[in-house]
Amino acid sequence: MKHSVSYPLTLSQFQASEGFWKDKMELVRKEVIPYQWDMLNDRVEGAAPSYCMRNYKTAGKYIRENKVEDSFSNNLEGMYRGFQVLPKDPENLEDTFYGFVFQDSDFSKWIEAVAYSLSNHPDAELEKIADEAIDVVCAAQLENGYLDTYFIINGMSGHFQNLTDLHELYCFGHLAEGAVAYYHATGKDKLLKAAMRYADYIGQCFGPEEGKRKGYPGHEEAEMALVRMYEATGDEKYLNLSRFFVDERGKKPYYWDSEPSCHGFRFWAKRDENDEGYQYHQAHRPVREQDEAVGHAVRAMYLYSGMADVARLTDDETLREACRKLWRSTVREKMYITGAIGSTHVGEAFSFPFDLPNDTAYAETCASVGLIFFARRMLQMEADSEYADIMEKALYNTVLGGMALDGKSFFYVNPLEVLPQASRKDARKAHVLPVRPKWFGCACCPPNIARLISSLPMYAYTENEDTLFMHLHMAGKVSKQVGDKTALFQVNSNMPWHGKVDICYCGRESTDMTLAVRIPGWCEKWQAEGIEKFDQRIEKGYCYLTGTWTEGTNISFCFEMVPRFYQADERVREDIGKVALMKGPVVYCAEEADNGKNLHLLQVIPEGEIREEWSDILGITLPVLSIQGERKTPASTLNTLYTPYEKNTYEATEVKMIPYFAWANRGENEMTVWLRQK
Amino acid sequence: MKHSVSYPLTLSQFQASEGFWKDKMELVRKEVIPYQWDMLNDRVEGAAPSYCMRNYKTAGKYIRENKVEDSFSNNLEGMYRGFQVLPKDPENLEDTFYGFVFQDSDFSKWIEAVAYSLSNHPDAELEKIADEAIDVVCAAQLENGYLDTYFIINGMSGHFQNLTDLHELYCFGHLAEGAVAYYHATGKDKLLKAAMRYADYIGQCFGPEEGKRKGYPGHEEAEMALVRMYEATGDEKYLNLSRFFVDERGKKPYYWDSEPSCHGFRFWAKRDENDEGYQYHQAHRPVREQDEAVGHAVRAMYLYSGMADVARLTDDETLREACRKLWRSTVREKMYITGAIGSTHVGEAFSFPFDLPNDTAYAETCASVGLIFFARRMLQMEADSEYADIMEKALYNTVLGGMALDGKSFFYVNPLEVLPQASRKDARKAHVLPVRPKWFGCACCPPNIARLISSLPMYAYTENEDTLFMHLHMAGKVSKQVGDKTALFQVNSNMPWHGKVDICYCGRESTDMTLAVRIPGWCEKWQAEGIEKFDQRIEKGYCYLTGTWTEGTNISFCFEMVPRFYQADERVREDIGKVALMKGPVVYCAEEADNGKNLHLLQVIPEGEIREEWSDILGITLPVLSIQGERKTPASTLNTLYTPYEKNTYEATEVKMIPYFAWANRGENEMTVWLRQK
Repeated sequence: MKHSVSYPLTLSQFQASEGFWKDKMELVRKEVIPYQWDMLNDRVEGAAPSYCMRNYKTAGKYIRENKVEDSFSNNLEGMYRGFQVLPKDPENLEDTFYGFVFQDSDFSKWIEAVAYSLSNHPDAELEKIADEAIDVVCAAQLENGYLDTYFIINGMSGHFQNLTDLHELYCFGHLAEGAVAYYHATGKDKLLKAAMRYADYIGQCFGPEEGKRKGYPGHEEAEMALVRMYEATGDEKYLNLSRFFVDERGKKPYYWDSEPSCHGFRFWAKRDENDEGYQYHQAHRPVREQDEAVGHAVRAMYLYSGMADVARLTDDETLREACRKLWRSTVREKMYITGAIGSTHVGEAFSFPFDLPNDTAYAETCASVGLIFFARRMLQMEADSEYADIMEKALYNTVLGGMALDGKSFFYVNPLEVLPQASRKDARKAHVLPVRPKWFGCACCPPNIARLISSLPMYAYTENEDTLFMHLHMAGKVSKQVGDKTALFQVNSNMPWHGKVDICYCGRESTDMTLAVRIPGWCEKWQAEGIEKFDQRIEKGYCYLTGTWTEGTNISFCFEMVPRFYQADERVREDIGKVALMKGPVVYCAEEADNGKNLHLLQVIPEGEIREEWSDILGITLPVLSIQGERKTPASTLNTLYTPYEKNTYEATEVKMIPYFAWANRGENEMTVWLRQK
Repeated sequence: MKHSVSYPLTLSQFQASEGFWKDKMELVRKEVIPYQWDMLNDRVEGAAPSYCMRNYKTAGKYIRENKVEDSFSNNLEGMYRGFQVLPKDPENLEDTFYGFVFQDSDFSKWIEAVAYSLSNHPDAELEKIADEAIDVVCAAQLENGYLDTYFIINGMSGHFQNLTDLHELYCFGHLAEGAVAYYHATGKDKLLKAAMRYADYIGQCFGPEEGKRKGYPGHEEAEMALVRMYEATGDEKYLNLSRFFVDERGKKPYYWDSEPSCHGFRFWAKRDENDEGYQYHQAHRPVREQDEAVGHAVRAMYLYSGMADVARLTDDETLREACRKLWRSTVREKMYITGAIGSTHVGEAFSFPFDLPNDTAYAETCASVGLIFFARRMLQMEADSEYADIMEKALYNTVLGGMALDGKSFFYVNPLEVLPQASRKDARKAHVLPVRPKWFGCACCPPNIARLISSLPMYAYTENEDTLFMHLHMAGKVSKQVGDKTALFQVNSNMPWHGKVDICYCGRESTDMTLAVRIPGWCEKWQAEGIEKFDQRIEKGYCYLTGTWTEGTNISFCFEMVPRFYQADERVREDIGKVALMKGPVVYCAEEADNGKNLHLLQVIPEGEIREEWSDILGITLPVLSIQGERKTPASTLNTLYTPYEKNTYEATEVKMIPYFAWANRGENEMTVWLRQK
């Protein structure tokens, strides 16, 4: 086991080649990051203000002017509206806190994306903006290290009093992640030091020692973040605090029940006959006793990711086994074919096993981002390609689909079937938007896409002492330290459109090491060339090539990538009698723009021929697949809804399918992933 | 046109024969009415108290003791929880109002059912209980005629201040309906006089005259009820007040917007870009401009019924045309095959056209009761069998299905597909109960079933001067006054199980008259015997037989009744590729009890043979149909949710189908009406 533990590359070890992912990273750099900065500063016309940077400035002013009060008071009416404080008069803002209680984290996710972007593409101007923003944020930190504008502004007696709902430890986590990333990218440690001081304060309040509180986050995130701090600083107290949070979770009696809960409400805590209260927060049982993915999907993924981190670093087998069970529950019972998870909007949560409705799906972008976090951490523990397969699936489908092709609008919810009039007229589908909006008041998804895409090499490759793991075949130059030598590979691939991967060793120095190349799960046949001189071993979906790598060594893998129809497990009621189409890791869908209205009248012939043709959508050239299908012959207009059965007749038609991630880029229209099979 | 206007029989004109409907009426008499009475008096263990009779007694006490206050105050917190005031300490009730604001109407619906039951089956003991209850209710009436315990107890300044939400005119309407029915049944007019005094008070407050308010009910019901008062008393002022309510509805600016709205909230009023606010209440436009059935389905049916009454009695062609449009919208675009309407639980409302999901259906029992009200009123205006077809469909399927076979439990929601674990675990389907509960806090459906079934002859037959219309072929003795002679028919039928209807004229006196027999829409072939001597005319689905009827005249109709598969309009997305099974007016369904779990794995062969066999469910013998189908061969257990497509294999199986109305009588289990067709 132990030998396969691995760590992500640092971004400086990778330089992306021109092509698919470079384009996406550039989109994030050029479009998303500047737009986000405008959003954080309430400068986007027509968008609801974020108040994020404003809150930091207000908190800084309170500190400067000694106005921080102890006694907590806030606008309860505002709170009731989903953890949000809205101004009474938006034209006349007061010196107070506005927006969601977790608004601070918007800055943190932005700075994290900025950090990755600076690693990939240095930019003095952007770095200056970031440094100034960091100054604003650090000026909002209290002497004792506490840093959360909601309580600094509203009164400190409220802080850490309602961990269940009020997101302080979540915000801390994002701050820490952003701080570590910015430190790695720039070497500047101002924000990291602030995060460490805050972490130290948290460690004074919470911990196993007598007199400290036994609390843990209501929205998980600090667990992962503390591990990153540990890995960045080497200071074990951060790892210990993370493990403490993981270990305390779900113990009974619930710590949360003993909280003064200063706001007098609990949003999601529900007890049922099986005493499975706090399922929403994954705190219904100690984590080692959990075996089903439940509750708020993003929270779940963040917790499981933190658990996997702790399990790996503490070599904790029971925790590792819990991670495996939760993984299996997630991906074998509760995941859409697009790698989306969390099928109900009620609580943005998991539903019961195999309940995966396509048209009411919640399938939050952030939940799939979280699934990718979890997958990579499982991969780090054990190089099993199942984890990478799912990581790739979530990435190419739900996460990419969460952003428009031009990077200017975003989905929070990623349905697999859309009828625009239903979204407009049926309150049960009001969350299913047929077109991406510019931004969201609760702006978790766009920044999460931004930070994931700009740090993608950390998911595409991991390494340990002597092995470089290639999970996603991402094209670019990869370097790796092997003892005192530097290995260097040039990887050429046109993923996700072609299955050919060329790998050239272009390091000046020869190295003795192993390259472990993932054999994708979607590939039924593959071959490799030039690998004869290496020791070869296939294990858990990876091809391990061990030997001496010298300059000019060329190897190549050819993974057969043919469009193929898929069926769902028969327990997925909504997909019975239907098929979906994939090419490699990319899920396809049918849109009204290509196939006319009433997609439900189509059925496809899974044995039929599939024709591939490159075509333009919003200026991006993509492989479009044409499949053989049939359209129901229109019934003669009748005046009654129900008529005696007559054999339905169908007319042959070609159904045009586009990559799912490219849907909803041509205005509002119907879309479906699953089509009835003939 | 005018010649076909007709009126329901009075119950004394009909005496049911032993058999299907007699059994149901007896069930209501023996089970439902006594149980309801216990409920109204909070004597049912385990059931949430109704507080209905208690409120009347409390109000009476306030009046006796001169404690009725002007200044209104109530428990706003309670109100917020869905119009309901719950006691702080259920063990120590105070002298105040409890329950839903519309709780008074529970008595009224009960007394209406009692009245019909007494007509069908005199019962001195029940009549005594009813008389005493009426005394309690009448003691709660104010001197000025006002009678609503919620405001009498909480303070009269609140009365008629929030017509939109607070159901006063709805409660009045039910009181009036109950009063008219009790008067017809017993000749006793105490309650009728109370209702008239209340109506007179309402007429002083609202009306076209200067100085009177231009309001109308937030929940329609008074419209129908005032017409019944007019028909019972002959006093046109009641008809005029009904017409006033109909005419004012939806005029802009909205009367409701000018209300002081003493409670500071509006539950359902929503304005959208098309200024279609108040759709929930069908008050978004003047009724003559409405052409789509929208909003709360029960409210809609009650309004349309009132509109049809007014149109008929005032010979108002524009109003009649609006009724026709709303009828067509309801039954041709928004009705399930079971005659259920209102497909979304959000607002218990209509969704957009052809949006008829089976598994999340709301399909409230009361809405189908309302559809039957509407249908009979349309029939009264024009004898077109389309109306009777729908009336029959709603009756035999949704309404009957709303009550258990033993009359002891009830559905509020009538889905067409149920997976019990979804109801338990998926909040989106929490309203879809897999087993009938004993009663409901908001107890509208059980009493509505009771009053409909016990007055069924008023729907089965209507008459005008010279014609008796037989809509539902209900078996029994029917008498009809023709001039100074009494016609008498003995109708024998085994509807809904056999298509043979024997009609024997058994009046001593010969009469010259017309018998109009409906040719059911589900019947493709029919023949009649013994009708040669009459003038025969087929018009809009009725066979008119005109001539002299003499004792011993025997005629018979044979309506072919074969089990038949049906398909839905292709615009109903949820039913595409599926079929349903009907025998005559009865819709069938497949249950887990007969077919095992995972009904979605079944598909049926619509061309296959159908086998009929009588079988017992809960002691009731019903025709069970066995159809030819196939069950998907279990897939080999796989560890992944999505696998490359392989041709599915199926094994032949017989699928056992039972009448939909008999579902959920054998414990919790899966059920579906629509099955995939091969």
